[in-house]
Amino acid sequence: MPNIAIFPGSFDPITKGHESIVHRALPLFDKIIVAVGYNADKKGLFSVEERVNFIKKTFSDMPDIVVDTYDGLTVDFCKKHNAKFLLRGLRSVADFENERNLASINKELSSDLETVFMCTDIAYSHISSTVVRDVLRHNGDVTKFLPKALKGCI
Amino acid sequence: MPNIAIFPGSFDPITKGHESIVHRALPLFDKIIVAVGYNADKKGLFSVEERVNFIKKTFSDMPDIVVDTYDGLTVDFCKKHNAKFLLRGLRSVADFENERNLASINKELSSDLETVFMCTDIAYSHISSTVVRDVLRHNGDVTKFLPKALKGCI
Amino acid sequence: MPNIAIFPGSFDPITKGHESIVHRALPLFDKIIVAVGYNADKKGLFSVEERVNFIKKTFSDMPDIVVDTYDGLTVDFCKKHNAKFLLRGLRSVADFENERNLASINKELSSDLETVFMCTDIAYSHISSTVVRDVLRHNGDVTKFLPKALKGCI
Amino acid sequence: MPNIAIFPGSFDPITKGHESIVHRALPLFDKIIVAVGYNADKKGLFSVEERVNFIKKTFSDMPDIVVDTYDGLTVDFCKKHNAKFLLRGLRSVADFENERNLASINKELSSDLETVFMCTDIAYSHISSTVVRDVLRHNGDVTKFLPKALKGCI
Amino acid sequence: MPNIAIFPGSFDPITKGHESIVHRALPLFDKIIVAVGYNADKKGLFSVEERVNFIKKTFSDMPDIVVDTYDGLTVDFCKKHNAKFLLRGLRSVADFENERNLASINKELSSDLETVFMCTDIAYSHISSTVVRDVLRHNGDVTKFLPKALKGCI
Amino acid sequence: MPNIAIFPGSFDPITKGHESIVHRALPLFDKIIVAVGYNADKKGLFSVEERVNFIKKTFSDMPDIVVDTYDGLTVDFCKKHNAKFLLRGLRSVADFENERNLASINKELSSDLETVFMCTDIAYSHISSTVVRDVLRHNGDVTKFLPKALKGCI
Repeated sequence: MPNIAIFPGSFDPITKGHESIVHRALPLFDKIIVAVGYNADKKGLFSVEERVNFIKKTFSDMPDIVVDTYDGLTVDFCKKHNAKFLLRGLRSVADFENERNLASINKELSSDLETVFMCTDIAYSHISSTVVRDVLRHNGDVTKFLPKALKGCI
Repeated sequence: MPNIAIFPGSFDPITKGHESIVHRALPLFDKIIVAVGYNADKKGLFSVEERVNFIKKTFSDMPDIVVDTYDGLTVDFCKKHNAKFLLRGLRSVADFENERNLASINKELSSDLETVFMCTDIAYSHISSTVVRDVLRHNGDVTKFLPKALKGCI
Repeated sequence: MPNIAIFPGSFDPITKGHESIVHRALPLFDKIIVAVGYNADKKGLFSVEERVNFIKKTFSDMPDIVVDTYDGLTVDFCKKHNAKFLLRGLRSVADFENERNLASINKELSSDLETVFMCTDIAYSHISSTVVRDVLRHNGDVTKFLPKALKGCI
Repeated sequence: MPNIAIFPGSFDPITKGHESIVHRALPLFDKIIVAVGYNADKKGLFSVEERVNFIKKTFSDMPDIVVDTYDGLTVDFCKKHNAKFLLRGLRSVADFENERNLASINKELSSDLETVFMCTDIAYSHISSTVVRDVLRHNGDVTKFLPKALKGCI
Repeated sequence: MPNIAIFPGSFDPITKGHESIVHRALPLFDKIIVAVGYNADKKGLFSVEERVNFIKKTFSDMPDIVVDTYDGLTVDFCKKHNAKFLLRGLRSVADFENERNLASINKELSSDLETVFMCTDIAYSHISSTVVRDVLRHNGDVTKFLPKALKGCI
Repeated sequence: MPNIAIFPGSFDPITKGHESIVHRALPLFDKIIVAVGYNADKKGLFSVEERVNFIKKTFSDMPDIVVDTYDGLTVDFCKKHNAKFLLRGLRSVADFENERNLASINKELSSDLETVFMCTDIAYSHISSTVVRDVLRHNGDVTKFLPKALKGCI
């Protein structure tokens, strides 16, 4: 059975930090599904379609990285795809506490689902989608914070 | 004078973690008032009445644990009930920093009011009302996270 | 060239903690601009005009402390005023992580802009504008949390 | 059965912070035993006898606060004294994480032993025995950090 | 090329927490080498031989988990074994900050070495080798904190 | 009166992180004294003389940065040099909590002494003297972690 990992997030938009985590984790898995979780009630800065396109562009030359969307429980999405692993990046102490609790909750909801963490590259540890959106809203230049493949797109 | 503690919160809904804190703290006090603080402008997932009913069911056989509601300052509610202690549970580092500040603020507003903390049982430390609401919204099973007395209610 | 620092924030309203940071940092700079950042879409408890007036009152006898407003990127406001330093107060661990990331982001956006931090006086470390607004909403007394010059104003 | 709490620590030496925790917690208990835990292999700055004397002086007029020493497991000392509660002060995030783990360990070793926490008064939250010893080693003045009753003793 | 992970530590002694991390991570790798790092100048409670034996007993029926020792740089040990991954468990915020820095340092020393993290099972998150040693020194019962296979050994 | 800052530390040895803090803070002060605090009872990896030489080399072309040593209280050293500011770098949450307490203690010991913080450049935030010493003890290459001026010296 192939070893599949889900990399869930809102990716509004994907950043250099996300890109780096996926690249570095790929040798551990046969396939990584970057899964854009959305909430019909919560509008993001970019539409779900835009977010998916940004991710596709970022990993266009990597067939083992695919993109999908979901709006239910993460554990249900994992079951549907026979994924036994969640992949998550850790940037900060605040991240860590949230992620530790989420990993426990997900394990209680689906006992054979493990969460694997990698720390964001130190050079990208200050970058978050929130910051990117904030700079964009004020018409600042976000090129430095985004995957190279998105140059000129956002 | 009886030793009364207020256990304030939004309890939207009460969790196994809350239940455990109240049970473990009871020997310290003559009475614990579980106080549902609400904000007329902020709608929760459950109505204040539902939240109160869940708490009543949880502690139905414990006469020293009563339930009430309030929407003003916590310190004013404590004065009204001659309570000299606030009871709070601590789960995480993020909790701790907020709670430490709140305890200081409450002491400045009411100099003889002390806040007593207990750490959430480690087995429940990942459970929060926020998580329960999130799982509920996606039709997940929250039985594991709620007091036993609520089985079948939520 | 004079050494100018920008002290940015929403100051909704200014607290004793903010006041203390500015006083203590003043010997480092020729001028400190207290800069009320606002967001046209996000209404605060006080209007931008009220916030500016509170700050003016607080520092009325200090000519090297001036007040201004802005609604774009902080780095753009700094450039406009030839300010090479951002001044920020640190109260908590949660503050620290956010501020460290912001300082890095601002340095990437404007490579010669440094952020200088001072820790809030320990006696004021529990005070935040959020807490002040919360107590105000419930008609509590916030005198202890505000600059003396504002006595009777809020 | 009287409600007894153990307040364990190395108290090398007792500080204003410790004193304040004991005073504020006393209404919760019939008796608080301040318990100087020592380790025969680890020499402190003050001898166990000196530490005990400092604590006795600090609480000389409070008959419900007694002092004792122990060098085994804290849970065994609690059993010996029929104490159902451990009392601990929390100053910092680092404290919190250690204390949460210790409370869990102690509960696993003795299932009916609960740990009750109070946050150190914000005005004393920077004071620790470690800092006091460090200032003493360099002949600095530690009066501000110690209980008033110890004025002139250290 | 087989996917090998090094799980480095002092394991003085191995705990239930360590055991659980290795079991849960095994599906990600072809082989996990549990690597007892020692320091000739720093004596532990157990000798390196004892620590290795405890680990062997713990994983005696799992051929893909092997034990080894080293006393140099972790990155050199990884190179010697053609391991591209370090495996580490995360229990607390304090752990997280240290581990994040170590992962960055190790990547600077060996650019193709990635560190993969898993959070300790919440039920074991309070257990550390330090606590086990401390309880042992006071003749307490540590059975609850150790792998089942070690029952009666320590 | 010139604006003097003391940058205290053990500097065993100075790292790229320290170097960067001093460079970035220099525009705030007329002079920065890098002050090697030592403890006659605690031997470092490098002698105090070696540490001073490494610092001198690092800042050899910068006349406003001088080096000195001390072994008493930091506040006494500041008074001796008429320094009104302590300069400190912040890397991590653990750093922050310690530094906040130290800044409060120093202010209680010397009421007109302020501590100014800068965050370590994110690219160097994982580097500490402890890590450098650890790599050196195992004969690893520390060039990446040290000021360029020290190339070939350590």
